[in-house]
Amino acid sequence: MKTRAAVAFAAKQPLEIVEVDLEGPRAGEVLIEIKATGVCHTDAYTLDGLDSEGLFPSILGHEGAGVVVEVGPGVTSLAVGDHVIPLYTPECRQCKSCLSGKTNLCTAIRATQGKGLMPDGTSRFSYKGQTIHHYMGCSTFSNYTVLPEIAVARIRKDAPFKTACYCGCGVTTGVGAVVNTAKVEPGANAVVFGLGGIGLNVIQGLKLVGANMIIGVDINPDREAWGRQFGMTHFVNPKAIDGDIVAHLVALTDGGADYTFDATGNTTVMRQALEACHRGWGESIIIGVAEAGKEIATRPFQLVTGRVWKGTAFGGARGRTDTPKIVDWYMDGKIQIDPMITHVLPLERINEAFDLMHAGESIRTVVTF
Amino acid sequence: MKTRAAVAFAAKQPLEIVEVDLEGPRAGEVLIEIKATGVCHTDAYTLDGLDSEGLFPSILGHEGAGVVVEVGPGVTSLAVGDHVIPLYTPECRQCKSCLSGKTNLCTAIRATQGKGLMPDGTSRFSYKGQTIHHYMGCSTFSNYTVLPEIAVARIRKDAPFKTACYCGCGVTTGVGAVVNTAKVEPGANAVVFGLGGIGLNVIQGLKLVGANMIIGVDINPDREAWGRQFGMTHFVNPKAIDGDIVAHLVALTDGGADYTFDATGNTTVMRQALEACHRGWGESIIIGVAEAGKEIATRPFQLVTGRVWKGTAFGGARGRTDTPKIVDWYMDGKIQIDPMITHVLPLERINEAFDLMHAGESIRTVVTF
Repeated sequence: MKTRAAVAFAAKQPLEIVEVDLEGPRAGEVLIEIKATGVCHTDAYTLDGLDSEGLFPSILGHEGAGVVVEVGPGVTSLAVGDHVIPLYTPECRQCKSCLSGKTNLCTAIRATQGKGLMPDGTSRFSYKGQTIHHYMGCSTFSNYTVLPEIAVARIRKDAPFKTACYCGCGVTTGVGAVVNTAKVEPGANAVVFGLGGIGLNVIQGLKLVGANMIIGVDINPDREAWGRQFGMTHFVNPKAIDGDIVAHLVALTDGGADYTFDATGNTTVMRQALEACHRGWGESIIIGVAEAGKEIATRPFQLVTGRVWKGTAFGGARGRTDTPKIVDWYMDGKIQIDPMITHVLPLERINEAFDLMHAGESIRTVVTF
Repeated sequence: MKTRAAVAFAAKQPLEIVEVDLEGPRAGEVLIEIKATGVCHTDAYTLDGLDSEGLFPSILGHEGAGVVVEVGPGVTSLAVGDHVIPLYTPECRQCKSCLSGKTNLCTAIRATQGKGLMPDGTSRFSYKGQTIHHYMGCSTFSNYTVLPEIAVARIRKDAPFKTACYCGCGVTTGVGAVVNTAKVEPGANAVVFGLGGIGLNVIQGLKLVGANMIIGVDINPDREAWGRQFGMTHFVNPKAIDGDIVAHLVALTDGGADYTFDATGNTTVMRQALEACHRGWGESIIIGVAEAGKEIATRPFQLVTGRVWKGTAFGGARGRTDTPKIVDWYMDGKIQIDPMITHVLPLERINEAFDLMHAGESIRTVVTF
């Protein structure tokens, strides 16, 4: 079949909207009509050529929502008409990782996904006879896309696609970092570095679990109002304080935070986040993706005296099990999504979404088909 | 009163055995007759002038066992005749840290202890009118010493001082890192870097909790027999393998260890320990004390993909609550101490204990009075 898609033919070039060829689903795969997709920093990271493992040409996009329109042989857990979210972190429930009960990082299709291919080692996308790579196993910048059954979460049918799609990455990553990875308890003091599309979801995750101090840190003063809208109780602009940000935060929290979250991707900030933790028990969670080659560092004394350094991917959420719950929480009013969708654009204007992101004007732009 | 003690008059000089003056216990303090004390790397670290916060003159030693011979006013939980272990990590059960339930790092007397003083800001030790500093709140290289009640653990009376003293640091640190900090579960695969007085106790802690693979790593081939004596199942000498030690360990453990422990104090090894952890859930625990100014580093990707970097001090043991349990485990035969006490020397020969340590000839030397 033919489908409209925004294709990344090469790094550092605008996406091109073209009609690509899409093969139907093979065994264990489903065909999904994407109704809406967010544009995330990770898409920009790859498009800007910063990901050394980035492949071109490819169809980017990994934060979508849509409807199953065809199922391949052997598919048992999904049916035509199901409303779904594609998962860049699948959940096979069979591999060593899934069975460990300790991680969401299913490894069932990791090797082929990293090569931009379906599990059988081929691509479903092509353009004028040339193979187009899948991206993060999702390729939601295409109106139709094919995914393995294990990489698709079924969600309730009354959830709007335009907002539910954000649960495919940003919302789940931020809220999940709080509830799955850090397991923040009521009354805890927390600091969130970076109040963008992820950080704001960390903020509302902290509000959800009953945190005490919810401190947002950003060098952009416009983000204070954003943070407060989702539950932030204190705002700190590192440029507006005297002296060291770590000392400032340790004083503000009477000894350090119980939990800190880096949602900046900046390795210097990651160190600050760790060192702003309380001696004895403070945990720092790295969410942001750092530039290739950058390293984090600290004195080991920081860890020996009880601080813990962790990270999270997709908020520690098991894709098929937990993503539908996040959608439920949204529909039940426990978390907000609507105000974060600052811009909605048709596929034809998808390149503007990247411009808005780079200019810091959007929290999230959603593209509709 | 007068007491014999090995005094560190200055860094990088042998200890001198002299008669020092010791004031009796004040309110909330007890006088202890030290019967035996281990000589630990941390004592050497300070004596060698590597600790930038080291104070001289002082009476070193922090791994002792003895008997309460006098109690000061207000002491309620200890009595004359009690067999005890001095604690460099006290347990007041009243401070924010104790009450958190999340850490053993009681802060009740931290400020004065760091200054080599008792909680009231004075020292009990002097020599020819000159103040001698306490060390780590213990100063077990003195035949008699004074400690705050909250820094003394009562142990059973049938435990020999000569071996029980090792529970004042090394045994509890190693075994506790496994049971308190990492909370290793039966069937886990673990790697221990450095098979000295701490690492061997990590090994036997892993055996105690039913770990599966217990892999010891040391560049000293003589340590293989030591490791196996306490439960090590595999030995890896980084100098005897081809290629990278991390890749070797990841292959040996089929993807990485569930838990790794650094008992070397070497920051390069600490990084290897983290990166030898299994993707998704592997936890690395730093036990060793690094040289001043040294930093640990890694790519944040290591944490984002699920590895956890932690540290431990005194094995996460709450001094008064958990140290007596470690002594019980020893007396019950659950863990061994006797074979690790490779040398016993009288106080007069304490400097030989440092020589044996530096030469790698001892696991632990115990000094008796």
